[in-house]
Parts: sequence; structure tokens; C-alpha cells
Amino acid sequence: MRGPDRLELSGERFGVVYHLTGTEDEARTKAADLCVEQTVEFPADLLPAGDIPDHIVGRVESFERVDERRFEALVSFAVEVAGGELTQLLNVIFGNVSIKPGVRVERLNLSPAILGLFGGPRYGREGLRELLNVPSRPLVCTAVKPMGLDVAELAELAHQFALGGVDLIKDDHGIADQSFCRFDERVTRCAEAVRRANQMTGGHTLYLPNVTAPVNELARRTQVAKRVGAGGLLVSPGLIGFDTMRDLAGDDAVDLPIMSHPALLGSFTVHPSAGFSHFALYGQLMRLAGADACIFPNYGGRFSFSESDCRAIAAGCAEPMGAIRASLPTPAGGMSLERVPEMCAFYGNEMVLLIGGDLHRQGASLSDACRRFVEIAERADTRSAPTTSPGPF
Amino acid sequence: MRGPDRLELSGERFGVVYHLTGTEDEARTKAADLCVEQTVEFPADLLPAGDIPDHIVGRVESFERVDERRFEALVSFAVEVAGGELTQLLNVIFGNVSIKPGVRVERLNLSPAILGLFGGPRYGREGLRELLNVPSRPLVCTAVKPMGLDVAELAELAHQFALGGVDLIKDDHGIADQSFCRFDERVTRCAEAVRRANQMTGGHTLYLPNVTAPVNELARRTQVAKRVGAGGLLVSPGLIGFDTMRDLAGDDAVDLPIMSHPALLGSFTVHPSAGFSHFALYGQLMRLAGADACIFPNYGGRFSFSESDCRAIAAGCAEPMGAIRASLPTPAGGMSLERVPEMCAFYGNEMVLLIGGDLHRQGASLSDACRRFVEIAERADTRSAPTTSPGPF
Repeated sequence: MRGPDRLELSGERFGVVYHLTGTEDEARTKAADLCVEQTVEFPADLLPAGDIPDHIVGRVESFERVDERRFEALVSFAVEVAGGELTQLLNVIFGNVSIKPGVRVERLNLSPAILGLFGGPRYGREGLRELLNVPSRPLVCTAVKPMGLDVAELAELAHQFALGGVDLIKDDHGIADQSFCRFDERVTRCAEAVRRANQMTGGHTLYLPNVTAPVNELARRTQVAKRVGAGGLLVSPGLIGFDTMRDLAGDDAVDLPIMSHPALLGSFTVHPSAGFSHFALYGQLMRLAGADACIFPNYGGRFSFSESDCRAIAAGCAEPMGAIRASLPTPAGGMSLERVPEMCAFYGNEMVLLIGGDLHRQGASLSDACRRFVEIAERADTRSAPTTSPGPF
Repeated sequence: MRGPDRLELSGERFGVVYHLTGTEDEARTKAADLCVEQTVEFPADLLPAGDIPDHIVGRVESFERVDERRFEALVSFAVEVAGGELTQLLNVIFGNVSIKPGVRVERLNLSPAILGLFGGPRYGREGLRELLNVPSRPLVCTAVKPMGLDVAELAELAHQFALGGVDLIKDDHGIADQSFCRFDERVTRCAEAVRRANQMTGGHTLYLPNVTAPVNELARRTQVAKRVGAGGLLVSPGLIGFDTMRDLAGDDAVDLPIMSHPALLGSFTVHPSAGFSHFALYGQLMRLAGADACIFPNYGGRFSFSESDCRAIAAGCAEPMGAIRASLPTPAGGMSLERVPEMCAFYGNEMVLLIGGDLHRQGASLSDACRRFVEIAERADTRSAPTTSPGPF
């Protein structure tokens, strides 16, 4: 029997906190407009009375001033509007209003019915630490690059990195399936090189090939990666879509940890009054979409993220989100061994240190440079006694 | 036999025109940096001499001042760097530099080898006009909405619209597979309602359901749409990825025209010195990714695109791009019947007029409002004699 609610809605709503720029009147108008724009997208005065204006249209739950020209509105939506899927959830959160100036998604307040739709990171912090047999210190990662080296050269790099005991070796995100370095051969050879090194050292280094690829090629590359023994996947959701990454993360036949790369996503955070907050994009959204570790540009590197942006990302990676596991912030972009102690002090142990080019500057063999990298991360372990041993190397 | 070029590159390069904000020195530094950032992403002084710095790293081909703090750099890349795929092409164009402030993609100068990778719009302007049997006047489109109506109500709307003779009826982009309006039933009923109307009128109205969906659901929904007689597809590439739309457009088993929706893409154009130009995003990129018609917010509506933004989009939809067909600009977002003559004068005949809510305001039946809409478009036909007949209705 149908109750007074013709649409049979549960009554559960989820929230999105928006920052709105302008005068108070302008911001209030923006908040009211987006309730319509993100749902019915129809003249409010022409809506039939009842469920649609009462339940389907978004609702401004609170409105506060943040500063002179910035206001914060919490808008709620019926969970059913998101249709049980990430694509439509993104659409409700920021589909049309992304096109309006002065609207930024600050934070997602997702309700149990929404959080329950998503598996999130398959491994998360603890799972990845278990795979790597690294219970406490910050994790250590480097990248196979530059583009233009041939397969044998890249595999030799991977071998040296793994001999040096780094935890994670990822492909550079620009290495795809170029004619001068084919995916299948490269991933096969790099995975084999890492396996050989692990056998020699007794280590657990994982190799994460870049599987970002056309949609009709993605499954095949992922299967190749899995078959030849890759230990994880590098994925750029900006290039293949957030939902595609979610699908990969949830695939039991793949069953590999995912490191996300921010390629093409810069426009979402480059303007402080548009797009997404760093917290929402690199913390909450990447976790919904299944990233176990999330690469972003660290403050003080080649990019322009601030310390406060980076602190927000770290918080978003750990923010309670129902059963969705915490992810590992992976600050990168021109980092150096010198900065490791400072970065560890800033982020704490729950992070991945990602250093590429600087390992090639150490005047030592690459495997020695990697050993030094791991050693510095061990010494920075804030959970160990201050006089901890520097480790086996 | 390998020549002096170890990587066996063809020598063909494609170009990207970037706008760079800052002083001349800053802009020159940005241009030089992005040649490295978008390719090898490795300290330039550590690159091995030879092919990598000579051919793989991007090259600034020209650099000019646009105004006081804006400079235009044409940067070329070896076609092989794009790896033969849209995901990696996007990555080279704007992967990492999207994260840096003051860099905007202004225009793509794609070379034959790149253009040859993509089928582009399957129908394009002429193909769509042929399907619709509308050789000359601007095309006419409306939307089934608002979200919250049930399947029978939406199908009845579609029926009325088709009786009124509009060319295209699209789902609202927020109508997905909600519990109160399931995809399969809705699309089946709407397609049937349009077919019935076409039989009554002898018309050729096409129904375009919104198939934007999770990646593991997209193929199924598209098949349902195809099977029940949908005449096209509405796709939001911001939600499912540009490459996924490309894949749909190229699928011979689907073989339907695609209308793209800009949901979630606003951040790419909301800031004038970041993201993509309107020309590049809504014109060139949407065509590479297979959109036959491209929805964007018209000037003077609910959004903030300017006349010059819209003119640039129309130009991008028609810009010569090898064998890639021209697409139809589809300005929308709070348009009204009153504005049709002005819009037709602005865009000319090669456009889709998309009006939603305003058709419900005409104080006439919806099918009469649609007849009026078509009639206005016929009168606006700039290729007909000025005293053209108003058509069959």
C-alpha cells in the first residue's frame, strides 16, 4: 500500500557542504538555486505540489558566514536521488553547479545508505601494510621513469629499486602503451625484475603498473598486470572516470591495491572558490572511488598546494566514512630525501613517501639510494622509540 | 635497421596552444616546464642525452604575448607520446599541468596521425539531419523531466513532445535509475510513446535516454536503450570519462547518435586562466570523444557563459579536424521560446535548440507548445526564403 509519500522514499538524506562566494544575498540565492539545479532542474513554480518539492528538491539545512564574501551551506538530498550509483551521486553533488562560478564542494556528509553502496579501498592502510610487512613506519615509494627508456632499462630500474627495499614501485603516470615501450612487455619484465629482487632480499616490494587506458583496453591490461604478478595498480581517475576506478577496486578477480594519480584533476582545485576542496576530492571522493593510496602534489614542490591544503587531504584520507577504509596520503611532485623527516613530522606515519627524480641525484647506486630512503623513513617512525635502530641496511 | 633515432619515432608532432598567465618571464618558465612535466616528468639535467631530450620532451614552437599578463605558447609533442589512445592524449595535453595555476588549454592542433585514431561523431551534422529528415532549419530538442515524475508521467510527456514534432527528446541528465523511476521501464515506455506518436504524425522524432551509468552497468543500459528503440543517447562524459563516450560512439552494435551533457565539467572552464578554453573543451574535445551534439549553457541563461564563450564553442564544433565530423552546438540552460529567433541569428542553422521548462509555461498543451517551437525554428531558417511557409502544423 502506498503511503502519503507516493515515491516511497526512506526519509534518509545525505548532505553536501558547499562554500558559496558573494554577498550574503547572492550566496543565499545560490544555495536555494542549487537545491533545484542539482535535482529537478525545472522551474520551481511549475513543479507539481507534493513529493517533488517536498522531498526530491534539495534542502538548505544550514547557512553560515565563513568570512566577508564566503558562506557555507549544508544542503541535503534524499538518498534515492543518487540512484544507488557513483555516477549519479557525483551528478547530484556537483553536476550542473560545477558550471556556476563561486560554488565549491567543501565536504560530503554521506549517510549510511550512500556509504553502504561503495566498497571503498580494498586494502586500505592496514591491508597495504600487511601486504608489505611494514607495520609502522611511513611507506616508501618510487617511480619507474622517464618515458623514453626502453623496456629493459625500465625493468633494470625496477630491479634496483626493489633491491634497495622500497615498498612500492609505480610506473610513471605518463608511461602507457607507447610504441617505444609496449605495456605487455614492460609490465611483464618489470614485475619479473621486482620478483627476482624480492627473492634475493626476502623483501615484499610491490610493482604498480599504470593501467590507465581506453575503456576497451583497460580490462585486458589489468588482466595482464595481474597475470604477470603486479602487486598493485596505478590509476588516473581523471582520465578514466572515478566510477571506472571504483569498478576496478571492487573487482574480486583483480584484487589488487590501487594508487590514484591526480592527472587532469587539477582544474577541480586550482581555484579556491570553485571545484572541490582538497579534503573532499583527494580524501573523501578518492576513497569512495576505491583508492588505497592517493597521490597529490605536496606543498613546497613543483606545484602550488599549501600546507593547509595538504593537511586537509591527510584529514580526508582518515575521516570516518562508515566501513570505508582510510587511505594513505601520498604527497609527491619534486620531493627529495632531504625533506623526508619534515614530511614525516607533518603527516605522521600514515603516509606514502613518493620520491622519483631525487633518488637519481644521490651520487650512489640506485639501490643504495633506496636503502637510504627506507632508512630515513624508519628513523622518522614516530611510533618507535626515539633511539630506534636504523634497520637492516 | 635502426637509424640514429633509437625510439623509431615518425617525426610527426601535434600541437597544443596554452595560455599562460603571469609576467613574461614566469610564462616562459611555465612553457618550458610543461614540456617536461607533460612528458618525462623528470629532472631535465638528469635525462640521458639523445632521443629523450631531443624528441620525447615537448618543444615550445612559438611564444607570444596576448595581453599584459597573458602569453600564448604553442607546444609540440611527438605523436608517439600520446600512445595511440585518448586517455594518454588527454594526459599529455593537460594531465599534470592542470594542477598548476595559470595554465589553460586554448586549442588543440592535432596532426593527421592523432586525428586518424578517432572516429569522432558517428553521425555529425549531416547524419543527424538525415535521421531526422530535417535538411535545413535549426534542430529542436526538449527534455523529459522533472525527476520525481513516475514512468507513466514521463512517457506521456515524451508522447506529447513527439506529437508536437520536436526532433529530439532527451532525458533530463539527472534521471538515471532511481528507485522511483527505473531505467528499463522508463526507457521502454518513453521509446514506445515516441514511436506511437511518430506513427500518428509521420514524424521522425528521436528519443535519447540518459545512459550515463556505472561502468559495469553502462553496456547493459545501452543495450536496453537500443533494443527498445531509443534513437540516440544522452551521455555525461564528465561523469563516465571522455574515453567511455568515445567507446560508445564507436560501437557498431550501438550505432546511435550521442548528445553530450556538461555535468561535472564546469570546473574546466569556470576560471578564465585555468582548465580548457570553451573552444577546446566543448568543441574539439567533445568531437574527439564522439559527441554528435554538445550541450552547453547558453549566454544569458541560468549560467554565466558569455557570448564570446558561446561563439567559441560554435566555432570549435565546426573547426576542420581531418575526417572528424562537425558536431551541433546545443546551447541550453533556462532558454525560452522568446529567445529562439535571437539564438538562431547568433548560431545560424547548424545548432540544436534545447528548451525544457519554458515549454510548460506556454498556456497551451505541450504538443501545441512544441508545434510552436518547431514553427519558430522554421521561420528562423536563415537558408530559406524569408517568406517560408510555417510548416505542416
